[in-house]
Amino acid sequence: MIRVGLIGYGYWGPNLARNLADTDDMCLQAIADTRADRLDAAARRHAGVATAIDAMRVIASDDIDAVIVATPLGTHHRLAKAAIEAGKHVLIEKPLASSARDAAELVALAADRDVRLMVDHTFVYSSAVVAIRSLIDRGHLGDLLYVDSVRINLGLFQQDSNVIWDLAAHDLAIMDYLIDARPVAVSANGARLAGFQHENIAYITVHFANGFLCHFHVNWLAPVKIRQMVIGGQQRMLVYNDMDPSEKVRVYDKGVDFDVKDDQARRQILVSYRTGDMFAPHLDRTEALARVTREFADAIAGRRTPLTDGAAGLRVVTMLEAAERSLREEGRRIAL
Amino acid sequence: MIRVGLIGYGYWGPNLARNLADTDDMCLQAIADTRADRLDAAARRHAGVATAIDAMRVIASDDIDAVIVATPLGTHHRLAKAAIEAGKHVLIEKPLASSARDAAELVALAADRDVRLMVDHTFVYSSAVVAIRSLIDRGHLGDLLYVDSVRINLGLFQQDSNVIWDLAAHDLAIMDYLIDARPVAVSANGARLAGFQHENIAYITVHFANGFLCHFHVNWLAPVKIRQMVIGGQQRMLVYNDMDPSEKVRVYDKGVDFDVKDDQARRQILVSYRTGDMFAPHLDRTEALARVTREFADAIAGRRTPLTDGAAGLRVVTMLEAAERSLREEGRRIAL
Amino acid sequence: MIRVGLIGYGYWGPNLARNLADTDDMCLQAIADTRADRLDAAARRHAGVATAIDAMRVIASDDIDAVIVATPLGTHHRLAKAAIEAGKHVLIEKPLASSARDAAELVALAADRDVRLMVDHTFVYSSAVVAIRSLIDRGHLGDLLYVDSVRINLGLFQQDSNVIWDLAAHDLAIMDYLIDARPVAVSANGARLAGFQHENIAYITVHFANGFLCHFHVNWLAPVKIRQMVIGGQQRMLVYNDMDPSEKVRVYDKGVDFDVKDDQARRQILVSYRTGDMFAPHLDRTEALARVTREFADAIAGRRTPLTDGAAGLRVVTMLEAAERSLREEGRRIAL
Amino acid sequence: MIRVGLIGYGYWGPNLARNLADTDDMCLQAIADTRADRLDAAARRHAGVATAIDAMRVIASDDIDAVIVATPLGTHHRLAKAAIEAGKHVLIEKPLASSARDAAELVALAADRDVRLMVDHTFVYSSAVVAIRSLIDRGHLGDLLYVDSVRINLGLFQQDSNVIWDLAAHDLAIMDYLIDARPVAVSANGARLAGFQHENIAYITVHFANGFLCHFHVNWLAPVKIRQMVIGGQQRMLVYNDMDPSEKVRVYDKGVDFDVKDDQARRQILVSYRTGDMFAPHLDRTEALARVTREFADAIAGRRTPLTDGAAGLRVVTMLEAAERSLREEGRRIAL
Repeated sequence: MIRVGLIGYGYWGPNLARNLADTDDMCLQAIADTRADRLDAAARRHAGVATAIDAMRVIASDDIDAVIVATPLGTHHRLAKAAIEAGKHVLIEKPLASSARDAAELVALAADRDVRLMVDHTFVYSSAVVAIRSLIDRGHLGDLLYVDSVRINLGLFQQDSNVIWDLAAHDLAIMDYLIDARPVAVSANGARLAGFQHENIAYITVHFANGFLCHFHVNWLAPVKIRQMVIGGQQRMLVYNDMDPSEKVRVYDKGVDFDVKDDQARRQILVSYRTGDMFAPHLDRTEALARVTREFADAIAGRRTPLTDGAAGLRVVTMLEAAERSLREEGRRIAL
Repeated sequence: MIRVGLIGYGYWGPNLARNLADTDDMCLQAIADTRADRLDAAARRHAGVATAIDAMRVIASDDIDAVIVATPLGTHHRLAKAAIEAGKHVLIEKPLASSARDAAELVALAADRDVRLMVDHTFVYSSAVVAIRSLIDRGHLGDLLYVDSVRINLGLFQQDSNVIWDLAAHDLAIMDYLIDARPVAVSANGARLAGFQHENIAYITVHFANGFLCHFHVNWLAPVKIRQMVIGGQQRMLVYNDMDPSEKVRVYDKGVDFDVKDDQARRQILVSYRTGDMFAPHLDRTEALARVTREFADAIAGRRTPLTDGAAGLRVVTMLEAAERSLREEGRRIAL
Repeated sequence: MIRVGLIGYGYWGPNLARNLADTDDMCLQAIADTRADRLDAAARRHAGVATAIDAMRVIASDDIDAVIVATPLGTHHRLAKAAIEAGKHVLIEKPLASSARDAAELVALAADRDVRLMVDHTFVYSSAVVAIRSLIDRGHLGDLLYVDSVRINLGLFQQDSNVIWDLAAHDLAIMDYLIDARPVAVSANGARLAGFQHENIAYITVHFANGFLCHFHVNWLAPVKIRQMVIGGQQRMLVYNDMDPSEKVRVYDKGVDFDVKDDQARRQILVSYRTGDMFAPHLDRTEALARVTREFADAIAGRRTPLTDGAAGLRVVTMLEAAERSLREEGRRIAL
Repeated sequence: MIRVGLIGYGYWGPNLARNLADTDDMCLQAIADTRADRLDAAARRHAGVATAIDAMRVIASDDIDAVIVATPLGTHHRLAKAAIEAGKHVLIEKPLASSARDAAELVALAADRDVRLMVDHTFVYSSAVVAIRSLIDRGHLGDLLYVDSVRINLGLFQQDSNVIWDLAAHDLAIMDYLIDARPVAVSANGARLAGFQHENIAYITVHFANGFLCHFHVNWLAPVKIRQMVIGGQQRMLVYNDMDPSEKVRVYDKGVDFDVKDDQARRQILVSYRTGDMFAPHLDRTEALARVTREFADAIAGRRTPLTDGAAGLRVVTMLEAAERSLREEGRRIAL
């Protein structure tokens, strides 16, 4: 039985605690949060679990094998570092750290201490994204042309960073999982609207060597909640609408066939669009977070690298950093 | 009665012809198209209207008071110039011309000959966009924060230019009508995917001096047709979904109230989000194009500047040109 | 060339006229309507077509081979009878007549005079309904279990009859086309709400011998326009949403597998639900009415029975009559 | 502190247990279920709560003040009767009992023992239904004309009864709460499709003295989940779509104005439809079940009748019984 300490019982912590209660081979041993009212709520829902104001008491405890960090981004590095140094396995809410340097240090440290370091790139474990990866792997979409994602809503979930570090972290994590090629540059535009101190709207373009393109619109000031990703492939195209209760992934048998005719007089490209059926694969209803805690438990038990390991977390943080830098430099393309 | 000659009976021409038949004070006198099969279809539907392969015959005819140009972009300048020089009033399908220089020449020429020059920025005449302008004018949205538009579908409507000149022309025309402030710079990213010779996906950001931001996603390679514009205001926010059959414009009583507290120790911004009712104003069902031909007739009869005059057309073409240049220069911000 | 006279240029007439203009082998020769303003509009749009206040002048004309009746229901029988007696082929807007007796008389008369009698069951010619018929024929849905349709909106399109004769006529025509079995009884409930003199809301159940069931909700007092039909099959189920711009027909690989176990102690039915993929077949965009005029022309030219002949029209009218009678008798089941 | 025993930890029980854990003044003391695996899951999630296979041990316990019955319908009467006789307050999952006789006995017994008897008509406590009641009370809709509800999905939630007792119980409970007038008769049509032993599709009409009409379509064999209620009013109309994540209630400023002109020659009703704005009131996100347990606690503490008391439960059961009888008698109207 892996004994888990949870640091942070704010927005995401209660979801982690609930899923831990249903994960075989794991048991939630202790919860830490700096706010007493949150600890009261935690105690009420999880009778018998120890609570602590001081995270370090949980991290240092001999009764704890693994630590889950679900605190604000600015504290990730410090808490994770302490946990790794205490020999604990660590699962960190995304993004891994607030700088590529910090992220790289955690990766190196975890390797050194031989503990599992995993980042909670939750969407990578959703039925929808798993199904999309499978469609890509089976060649169903053909060569990929572009990914376009819109992730907007009203509301601020991270007080200590901008919308890129909060929302685009999801898109970059999904992209990192779905796309095998590595990007070469990032550019971004955005603004601090309505008196905010951090950017609350941003547009990020991720460039690849072969012309493939990813674009992400992230926005904390939108009146409607949209979570929609379009993936264009040479053979088929796909729309992943995470807000759709029944058919999150729709695959369109649409594409482009073209034919270059080399006429003596002139070159003409004849384009014909294919417009065919649509299908929506059945997705099982397993909660993504249940698969996250399962993967963490399995990686620990099997002494193996988790799917979304520290290296994946570092790649995402590196792109986030580049996007932020481009934002400061008028959208200049930043090489990775 | 204003006697009209229509040049071009391809995609848009039949719609113009149909609306002309229902416009008081105007009558469709002649239709020109370089393709005989199109002229046959035109003759069948519009018995009694003269047809011609040679556009110049229509333009030069003494029986014609006004010319409507609905031909590929590359021919706009030549045809419009000839018509203006022949003393005809001219309505041109958007965009006005394929370069700012050509557009400016048409504007100057029309002023010189004292004929009406109008560009068919169709959406400006739609009930939805008219209603949005009215909401803005009445202060319903408060100070505007951003405009974000997605205009994507599968299919190529312009063979002689890229997706910016085709689709973004609509967004820039709407923006030009809705926003009184003048933009200061444009940047764009995009790609030529799937072997196309012109860009078929592009992301355009239009920058304003006061931080206000517009962003347009235009795409000819999308599996679904999306025509959605989000306008964020300090008081309320709005979603304009042109594909919604019944409620195209939805106004959300959502916004941001914030309160800056200057604490001795630190500055803290307390943000509170307002989440209230939504309402969708009733829109009349008049076809936008019926208002376009009406405005053209009224401007001619009243010897006045039409709402979407040559100057508006020139402003849009100037931004299109800047966007294309940014596309060629890795998304560099191009001053206007 | 089949020379056509159109009687009625109100709501549906202009659509018929427009489609006739695009139908090969047919030409619109004359339009009759009792209202002068409608004739003016007709003349404007269809230059060269004769117009008449008196329908009988068109019906009696030697220049006319076929008559299309698009007038209020109460006049169908009189006009169609006159046309048939004048030796003209007749296409009538649905429903065929206002009583089964009148409908039967038209059928007999047309047979006697050897002219084509066709009823404009428009939806039978839509791409969606044609695709559904094909899915059923290929056994894709398995044995059919039920059809449920909702056809509601705000607004009265027929002043001289109730909502059943207006809206349910569509559903019954679709059912008549899709379902080979013949119904055995009809029951209906409904009401005259808001002071109307005719029923404006009704619920109709059509009973079949084998337990198969059809139910139709028709309503002129609904705030939203819904046109949705669900067809349950043993193998798969289908939703036909006529308001969906892109995927009108969705086929769900959902169904029921059950297994009866005869236990000594008790009988237990184990039900398991299958929940699989969804697919939406591509539908071509041909307008249904274009296929209606095409079928009329082909039936005349080929001297053959049209798909929706008088007999189909009579079956629908018989069910409408039974539904109305059930409505008057507290929902009593009326045998057919 | 009200000490609660929960009987039944199947589909609905875990939701009740979760909400009890967050309800002030109440504590979950014991959980009973006949299945050991369910008790294991309960013990895991609710550490410290006693579990029992035998419901009677919980009911009889001195440590229990109130009992919640969340078991199959056939056991409601027996368990509730035992609990009331043991002097416990009782909250029962809908419907109250499987016959009007049983329901009435429970109501009388609870009055006799002076304990609170409440039925969990969950939707009555939803933000949407509360908002609708408020709109009706404020005269926003004007005189009500009809209620039409569709509640369909794939899947059987009650093994021991038909779809009416399962799904229509919700609609009748909502109707009982929203409509002050009492219905006079019920009629129903339906079928046992696909080899089921109970009806799995049914259409129920509830008749009122003044012409007002309610109709409910309930179906366990539908490929899509629909939860949509339309309420037509003389002034405005409303659509309540429980599946809409953001705007569940939409109020349409649509209606009918009519004007009866008494002409010498004939009576003519001139109908004009009003088509205006739509608005969607903001709904708070409180879970309905949290309000159910809150109301149960408050009724116990305040020694008052709960909102959905035994009498409401009895009214709903009486209508369910009448609907089932009509189903057996070819849709005959059954007086209440």
